[in-house]
Amino acid sequence: MNLFDLDTPALVVDLDRLEVNLEAMAAHARAAGVRLRPHTKTHKTPEIARLQLEAGAAGITVAKLGEAEVMAAAGVTDILVAYPLLGAAKLERLARLRESARVVVSLDSVEVARGLGELGVATREPVEVYVEVDTGLHRLGRPTGEATAELVERVAAVPGIRVLGLMTHAGHAYGVGPDELGALVEDEVAGLRATRELCAQRGVELSEISVGSTPTAHAELGAAGVTEARPGTYVFNDTTMIELGAATEATCAAFVLATVVSRPSEDRFVIDAGTKCLSSDHDDRPGWLRVAGRDDLAFEFLNEEHGVGRLDPERGRTLAIGDKVLVIPAHVCPVVNLFDSMTLVREGRVEGEWAIAARGRVA
Amino acid sequence: MNLFDLDTPALVVDLDRLEVNLEAMAAHARAAGVRLRPHTKTHKTPEIARLQLEAGAAGITVAKLGEAEVMAAAGVTDILVAYPLLGAAKLERLARLRESARVVVSLDSVEVARGLGELGVATREPVEVYVEVDTGLHRLGRPTGEATAELVERVAAVPGIRVLGLMTHAGHAYGVGPDELGALVEDEVAGLRATRELCAQRGVELSEISVGSTPTAHAELGAAGVTEARPGTYVFNDTTMIELGAATEATCAAFVLATVVSRPSEDRFVIDAGTKCLSSDHDDRPGWLRVAGRDDLAFEFLNEEHGVGRLDPERGRTLAIGDKVLVIPAHVCPVVNLFDSMTLVREGRVEGEWAIAARGRVA
Repeated sequence: MNLFDLDTPALVVDLDRLEVNLEAMAAHARAAGVRLRPHTKTHKTPEIARLQLEAGAAGITVAKLGEAEVMAAAGVTDILVAYPLLGAAKLERLARLRESARVVVSLDSVEVARGLGELGVATREPVEVYVEVDTGLHRLGRPTGEATAELVERVAAVPGIRVLGLMTHAGHAYGVGPDELGALVEDEVAGLRATRELCAQRGVELSEISVGSTPTAHAELGAAGVTEARPGTYVFNDTTMIELGAATEATCAAFVLATVVSRPSEDRFVIDAGTKCLSSDHDDRPGWLRVAGRDDLAFEFLNEEHGVGRLDPERGRTLAIGDKVLVIPAHVCPVVNLFDSMTLVREGRVEGEWAIAARGRVA
Repeated sequence: MNLFDLDTPALVVDLDRLEVNLEAMAAHARAAGVRLRPHTKTHKTPEIARLQLEAGAAGITVAKLGEAEVMAAAGVTDILVAYPLLGAAKLERLARLRESARVVVSLDSVEVARGLGELGVATREPVEVYVEVDTGLHRLGRPTGEATAELVERVAAVPGIRVLGLMTHAGHAYGVGPDELGALVEDEVAGLRATRELCAQRGVELSEISVGSTPTAHAELGAAGVTEARPGTYVFNDTTMIELGAATEATCAAFVLATVVSRPSEDRFVIDAGTKCLSSDHDDRPGWLRVAGRDDLAFEFLNEEHGVGRLDPERGRTLAIGDKVLVIPAHVCPVVNLFDSMTLVREGRVEGEWAIAARGRVA
């Protein structure tokens, strides 16, 4: 079947491009001698996790315990849950998960360490943790330097805990231009190295510096001291990655196939994909969505089930009710989370389908 | 079980408030003598559709055919699919759906009418349609007046089609203040009445004027000529409805229960619910999210799995790692679509769970 014969809306993945993206990042990490632990939140799909591991990844990263459970059930045996886990329900699930996989957990407080430590003591198998550091995103973690070193020392003193290293996510890189990424990463990694040194002075030797995000990946893989990288979006890319210079339209591998359901006026068109397929992420950025191969089309706004756009009549191209278009998302991770499955295509032919097995695992 | 003993994040619905909201809108429609056909996109849950029908709704509205299929399978027999349906795959599904339910479809083009008409002819049972009118949202439809009347005449001439009336969604009401809603609705309904008159002059008698949205509902139910109203959000409400004067915190019935997973600094807190639970809708509006009963807490930004907020230390209230909070969404409809089920509570006790059976039905 030709991909344009699919019913819409549909999430479509170009396997050739996916494979190119997987191999490019894997090759880069190999060359840099850095362990790759891709963040699977982008695809939430065990089949793609397996491809990442086959390409050389040492393990995977997930955002939530529920995602880890799906990946472990599919045979993944080395998982970083990059999230502070607390509460009896989650600790019980973590205990079960550790029966089939090595699980590292990130945290940024002694409170969370204490809960995990009880599990480590009870099972006589310390819980391995990364301490999360705030390198500028101002989300989780304390700043680099003494604030973090002091926290690391206290976490390391909790019985049942083994601190492996420092972890950060330079999400603030999404707010800077491509030219500033190099300096941002240099600051980030220098701060982590200095913090590790301070930890050593307090008697806590840390072997790991784990960083990650697709736009920063290239600079991070070349930075001294980094032992592990956790990019996620590179498998599919999106218009934000294009904007940040980390991708081109030709390396975008995931699309929402949509149908033009209305042409209410000469220059307006409406497609059957809105925020329920494309999310509202980044909709404050002009050109936040692109139609592949059609730069005469631009979106004005999305409602839940409608994508409303404008066609530039000067460009002389037509668009009729019933035509189908491939939309490149602005932020591909939440888009994948909105679909139950992805349709696989190669050279425009449908080759199969993968269930997005870890979709919607909020807890 | 107490609701605060639930694992998080969880979508929680207060049944007492839901029942109050359902009955208030039903009573208002009864008093106005207007048929209620609630939009079920807000809850996507057959059990709530059934409560709406028991409270007097004449039928339901859905956004997509997939939602209609779920509702029909649950026994709903009168459904408006408020969306232009086209293409062989959807027309086949519509044919099957019509075997178990009355289905009305909305459209705004002759192209869509032709496809539906073929089905009407083939089954010797005309497809009933509403013609959608643009009353200011500039999404689907032509403007009121001759532009729409001309379209209605052409649609009515398509074999196998029966035009029941005019339909609009005054989504532009979300952009005006509560004081301006009355005038906006007056314009909207006057335009529809005049258009119906023009249609009659062209020989097409229309019996229906169908309008709908929660913020405009009260004004619309009192407007001469309106025969049907399709509010959706009123069942749960959200901070946008509060902002528009259509709800108060006391009539908000759906919450995301979340846990404080970090207190990285004196005034910052992080909860385990981000856009994957709360969506990014309306995040450009200060105070777009509220924590029920805690006006000393305000959100700064959401990432996919993190809600990052600020606590006002001047207010003297604490917030500790492990504490749970109830977050009122900014736009409840996409939030419901992000969960597989909702937990039902009454006076803070867990009473059960409903599957969100029509979640994720994008097509």
